[in-house]
Amino acid sequence: MTILADMLSTVFERRYAPWGGGRTDARPIPDQAADLIGARGEISGLTLARSILDRYAALDDAGRLDFFRHLADEMTIDTDRLRTALAAYEQGQTKTTYRAVMNAAEPPRQELIRRLNQVPGATNALVNMRADLLRLGRDEPALQALDLDFRHLFASWFNRGFLVLRPISWESPARILEKIIAYEAVHAIDKWEDLRRRVEPDDRRCFAFFHPAMPDEPLIFVEVALTRGIPGSVQGLLAEDRTELNKDRADTAVFYSISNCQNGLAGISFGNSLIKQVAADLSMELPGLKTFVTLSPIPGFCRWLGDSGIAHDPADDAQMRALAAWYLTRARREDGTPLDPVARFHLGNGASVHQLHAGADASEKGQAQSCGAMVNYLYDLARVSQNHERFADAREIATSSEVRSLAAAADKQMA
Amino acid sequence: MTILADMLSTVFERRYAPWGGGRTDARPIPDQAADLIGARGEISGLTLARSILDRYAALDDAGRLDFFRHLADEMTIDTDRLRTALAAYEQGQTKTTYRAVMNAAEPPRQELIRRLNQVPGATNALVNMRADLLRLGRDEPALQALDLDFRHLFASWFNRGFLVLRPISWESPARILEKIIAYEAVHAIDKWEDLRRRVEPDDRRCFAFFHPAMPDEPLIFVEVALTRGIPGSVQGLLAEDRTELNKDRADTAVFYSISNCQNGLAGISFGNSLIKQVAADLSMELPGLKTFVTLSPIPGFCRWLGDSGIAHDPADDAQMRALAAWYLTRARREDGTPLDPVARFHLGNGASVHQLHAGADASEKGQAQSCGAMVNYLYDLARVSQNHERFADAREIATSSEVRSLAAAADKQMA
Amino acid sequence: MTILADMLSTVFERRYAPWGGGRTDARPIPDQAADLIGARGEISGLTLARSILDRYAALDDAGRLDFFRHLADEMTIDTDRLRTALAAYEQGQTKTTYRAVMNAAEPPRQELIRRLNQVPGATNALVNMRADLLRLGRDEPALQALDLDFRHLFASWFNRGFLVLRPISWESPARILEKIIAYEAVHAIDKWEDLRRRVEPDDRRCFAFFHPAMPDEPLIFVEVALTRGIPGSVQGLLAEDRTELNKDRADTAVFYSISNCQNGLAGISFGNSLIKQVAADLSMELPGLKTFVTLSPIPGFCRWLGDSGIAHDPADDAQMRALAAWYLTRARREDGTPLDPVARFHLGNGASVHQLHAGADASEKGQAQSCGAMVNYLYDLARVSQNHERFADAREIATSSEVRSLAAAADKQMA
Amino acid sequence: MTILADMLSTVFERRYAPWGGGRTDARPIPDQAADLIGARGEISGLTLARSILDRYAALDDAGRLDFFRHLADEMTIDTDRLRTALAAYEQGQTKTTYRAVMNAAEPPRQELIRRLNQVPGATNALVNMRADLLRLGRDEPALQALDLDFRHLFASWFNRGFLVLRPISWESPARILEKIIAYEAVHAIDKWEDLRRRVEPDDRRCFAFFHPAMPDEPLIFVEVALTRGIPGSVQGLLAEDRTELNKDRADTAVFYSISNCQNGLAGISFGNSLIKQVAADLSMELPGLKTFVTLSPIPGFCRWLGDSGIAHDPADDAQMRALAAWYLTRARREDGTPLDPVARFHLGNGASVHQLHAGADASEKGQAQSCGAMVNYLYDLARVSQNHERFADAREIATSSEVRSLAAAADKQMA
Repeated sequence: MTILADMLSTVFERRYAPWGGGRTDARPIPDQAADLIGARGEISGLTLARSILDRYAALDDAGRLDFFRHLADEMTIDTDRLRTALAAYEQGQTKTTYRAVMNAAEPPRQELIRRLNQVPGATNALVNMRADLLRLGRDEPALQALDLDFRHLFASWFNRGFLVLRPISWESPARILEKIIAYEAVHAIDKWEDLRRRVEPDDRRCFAFFHPAMPDEPLIFVEVALTRGIPGSVQGLLAEDRTELNKDRADTAVFYSISNCQNGLAGISFGNSLIKQVAADLSMELPGLKTFVTLSPIPGFCRWLGDSGIAHDPADDAQMRALAAWYLTRARREDGTPLDPVARFHLGNGASVHQLHAGADASEKGQAQSCGAMVNYLYDLARVSQNHERFADAREIATSSEVRSLAAAADKQMA
Repeated sequence: MTILADMLSTVFERRYAPWGGGRTDARPIPDQAADLIGARGEISGLTLARSILDRYAALDDAGRLDFFRHLADEMTIDTDRLRTALAAYEQGQTKTTYRAVMNAAEPPRQELIRRLNQVPGATNALVNMRADLLRLGRDEPALQALDLDFRHLFASWFNRGFLVLRPISWESPARILEKIIAYEAVHAIDKWEDLRRRVEPDDRRCFAFFHPAMPDEPLIFVEVALTRGIPGSVQGLLAEDRTELNKDRADTAVFYSISNCQNGLAGISFGNSLIKQVAADLSMELPGLKTFVTLSPIPGFCRWLGDSGIAHDPADDAQMRALAAWYLTRARREDGTPLDPVARFHLGNGASVHQLHAGADASEKGQAQSCGAMVNYLYDLARVSQNHERFADAREIATSSEVRSLAAAADKQMA
Repeated sequence: MTILADMLSTVFERRYAPWGGGRTDARPIPDQAADLIGARGEISGLTLARSILDRYAALDDAGRLDFFRHLADEMTIDTDRLRTALAAYEQGQTKTTYRAVMNAAEPPRQELIRRLNQVPGATNALVNMRADLLRLGRDEPALQALDLDFRHLFASWFNRGFLVLRPISWESPARILEKIIAYEAVHAIDKWEDLRRRVEPDDRRCFAFFHPAMPDEPLIFVEVALTRGIPGSVQGLLAEDRTELNKDRADTAVFYSISNCQNGLAGISFGNSLIKQVAADLSMELPGLKTFVTLSPIPGFCRWLGDSGIAHDPADDAQMRALAAWYLTRARREDGTPLDPVARFHLGNGASVHQLHAGADASEKGQAQSCGAMVNYLYDLARVSQNHERFADAREIATSSEVRSLAAAADKQMA
Repeated sequence: MTILADMLSTVFERRYAPWGGGRTDARPIPDQAADLIGARGEISGLTLARSILDRYAALDDAGRLDFFRHLADEMTIDTDRLRTALAAYEQGQTKTTYRAVMNAAEPPRQELIRRLNQVPGATNALVNMRADLLRLGRDEPALQALDLDFRHLFASWFNRGFLVLRPISWESPARILEKIIAYEAVHAIDKWEDLRRRVEPDDRRCFAFFHPAMPDEPLIFVEVALTRGIPGSVQGLLAEDRTELNKDRADTAVFYSISNCQNGLAGISFGNSLIKQVAADLSMELPGLKTFVTLSPIPGFCRWLGDSGIAHDPADDAQMRALAAWYLTRARREDGTPLDPVARFHLGNGASVHQLHAGADASEKGQAQSCGAMVNYLYDLARVSQNHERFADAREIATSSEVRSLAAAADKQMA
């Protein structure tokens, strides 16, 4: 059966290679690692790499920490060698001296990670390895430095040019769909019937980025509702008894949930590309779509209200909307960017703060974090570059006139 | 088989993204390049990258040289900055000081190439860009250094773990097959009927490595004949009127042609992996296969005979085989490796010199380079690692007893 | 995304054809039907056929009965015409007289059904139409005759040569998997986790026949367990906490559930082909498989015990097995075939009665119908043809010696 | 595009089934055929059917004629039985009496052909068998009658609802493309470069119907040129040095070649569906297309001019166009349909005679049959049903006013 997982894995299908596979190699991992990045590694690398990955997988956290510390301490850059190479390069800039700088400046652990990656399935194993590192290595500077090497390599491997955007639907393999259920981070999916309501109807879409070497693992996905007009409540969107809209009548695409799936890819940003690619694809398929907005939580709103001791009446919609507008557009961090993390993401992508809704998210999480409020960020094709530049250069936040009025209304209270 | 170009291109299908696509950007390429690696590049990168690639494609060789020199001179490492970062790192090894070294040690052109790669189809364009660089930059040290950056990135992108092995057959798309015709470098393919004889019969196979981001472009391919016994002549293998062998009766797989397809991937080695992967796959499909050999030219043989002034009678098969055995196993370069480049490749992979044939290649090229002689290199699964290590460590060349006898027979003449 | 449903539907993808599609045709269905089988139908048939199918779909049962009666009464064979054609043919056997007999002998409703089938999706609609007919037309001889025409056409369309065997797994589209849940007729599947236990583990398989024109609809499917030895209890097979078996260690394939999915294909038999094809495929994939058995209910056993007033102690395993053996091999219908319908199916396919198990099915249904007993029918590749012939010719039932002994032990009680 | 042969063959992949395959069955084909349609055939049918097809394939023409005569004489309808069944049915119309008529009215050879079709690949073999029958059985009424049974079954199997329309392009497998070269019947394709010019450029398309059970065999295909304006010469369309048109600028789709591929499907008409389906698909992909025309030969024109002794000057374009218009619209057969066979096909489909071109086909065949003239038949979506009906009912031929004027101009000469 050809299916997403199958298709991609066929692309990357590789079978157990019996070459030299007979011998088991019981030496310590560091010895194997040294061999793998040496001359021998070019020929016998597959066997060595598989052995190292298998043994890593069998380690407990303490053993994994030991392994990371070995990489951090023994396979880092040799500063003397780099200084010498740099001096020689400054003496004479040739291919040889340049290569010497390159080689000295790259810690051997980077080559180790590249060679581990030869094994079928290794990319996923290495992403999980970095998730371990992030979890275990938080407080050790040497391990934080090691993480920079993982991140550097992953940024190259997970280059946008290598990612695949795929629709997720009721036609998708159960193996993929169960991961969507597991990874949904914004509005939890309880069970398969819940999922079906988000991917099967004609006016509901879901898209994910995949990497060909990890065909069973979505990297990030977005859920989209096709609507007439901009909706102000997520429960309305997800209601069991709602009436389906003929997709050709839709004028608005609402990105109501974006979830990152891989802890091991923290800091490698896909969300911006995903939203723009999906918007581009949808507008090609459905020329009637004119508006692309999110329906987003305001996850720092409640805490900010509390920390700042701002008097407010949760039942007063007008007040809550005004305060939310003020929070999103006026409450800043030291670097001038908005306090709210979701706002930072979308405004950084070039979106604008478009509409505010009070009492829009009745879920426990929505009440606790956003005090029930939600916001639409607008992705306006004609303005997204300009918005981004003004935000990046001058921390200028694009807003609708309505949002500006709301924020102005709160100014008195906040003054 | 799931047809290649289709499947891969479905995987990597990407459409023209209209976001911000309207404006044309007529600034000089260097200005665009600076933008692309700056903060703006994270959001508007796709448009910038596409523009740079399009404009590069429209340049003539002189313009391309200018572009390369810009990368070489203006986007190289800043040695002062690196020295400062290094000093700070030696003062205190923290995440911050380590990141500073990493950033300073990587020339900005590497980030530029990575960001160019976001555009659909860019990987192929960048491989072709490096082919231009290799052609135009041969004699300029700064351009040779620039090439090291391309090569460094390509080694990461074309990691064995990301490559796809696909069979090439008469079911393959014409678009792929015409490239096999064009790229065949060992035994030229004249026309489609020629090609059909190499890929359609049940006892003829062809396999290629592909990269998912270049689905229409084979990277390297190997042609295989399934035979009973080890053949000694390539014309016999390719004869129009030969009798097809039932594949289940074959005991030997003969790798009779290996061709690299992409000049821009020079120095990124795939051949070793390809042979071993194909051998592994074939032995799983056809358990009757016991012997994996090449049928290879000896391209330096004629020139060596001539340069060395060795008396020989081309019609004397025994003498020619003895001289060829001597040449392959005794004639060395200063570093101890064999004079013959094809021998260096296969012996470096762990193969042994197995059989010699005189009068085995009647083609013009075979006569001119190999004096008609051919050799079988044997890939013996049980010995390939050991052979490789002995060759790597001590320049020891594995041979069959027959080849040893032949070389010994020539010792007198060469003494 | 390429997936089973997608792949097959791509095969049969057909889009709305705008040709002449504008006009709506409000004439009575019979008028449209007459047009569709007339000369006009060859060109404008698609529009007419779509209109008839759409209007049929909107009818209630009374309306559908009217439609069927129209087909039964007005579009049946014209006996006078057939008698005349037959006489002419007996006068002179030419192409013309033969064609006249063919045309007169086929009722016009057959051509109507064929022409309705031109519309995308029509095959499924026609299968459902026959399901309606079987439900509504039970007691009317003319509608029973009409059903023979549907069945005749379906036997041709659903010829074994046109069916596709596909594995069903956790990689299959949710759209297909939910139908497996719905159609499972032997051992009910409660929820997705239940299903996963039957299709995801390496030692559990599921296969279905599909027709290319009904890509989303399995026709029949079989569930298989790979085991060591022959299991005697279905709850053991389906236990949540069982230990998975490495598939390469399995020596037995157990067909523990076979379900027909389409009421509208009643009487078109696929089960025999399905079991044999699956057994052939599995034995090719896993050469270690030596035994192919079912684990089947004995659905008529309880009723037979009751109707016949046979004294029995449900807790006495030995007695229950003996009585079951007697029932399966001695209790016959008037035509000499076994009383038990599942026995008739497998014995007719050439299987033998191999082992009996008491207390083997603890489910409510298993208790109520089979008194908890189960049976393994053995599909022995070397004997299946011979068994079938003896059963077909002489009602001879193949059994193991153990089953013969059991039946003999019951003879006294039954005498 | 999802490559055709692959996808379909995946859909229909079936492997050699070892069940009961050991025994070879050397009885005469008629004995096997009798078995195959008997009760045994339901279980052991696959082996029997394969044996019959294999032995048929090994027969020479004389042996095949014998086989056909056996089917014609021994497996035809039993008129006595049919008359008896008919009488019983007229006595009482029940399910039983109706079934008896059905069974008696269908010659046993139809069931034989259906059962032969179970074997993988049999559909293709049976189509080829009918091609043999048409070739060998021309003059024997009993074999002509036998052919009616083949045709009856094929009309059911090759129902439009079961066919698959697939684009043929430079991405298609070589195995399919070489068949397009072989089957092109209108404007011969000399070599692969010729083919490439017809399927690779963006303004050239090719589409074929396939049947899922014959995935490697196109049934019929059409070649299309996308143009601005209606072209008047086929050499212009196929010129090697022509300038490619951006497909989005095209306003006209020209069907310049339609070829049937399977002799064994003679009389099963696909052309009408193919043209309409392709037109529908193209107009959906390229909304700029407004005109759908053929560029067709007038194959009976030369012979008609000669047979009728009509004075004409081949170099006088005006006269030749007028005579061609007269020929196409006034020269009729006894039944009122046009003399010209290509005209009958397109006018029967609802097209109109739109434009005439003299000196438009310089090929040898074009000169010999059409005296160099060509015609555009216009498929006007809004008129095709009406045109068809008027042609079918009253032999009225739809024409443009220009063609009417041309024909009127020739009236004087013809009077």
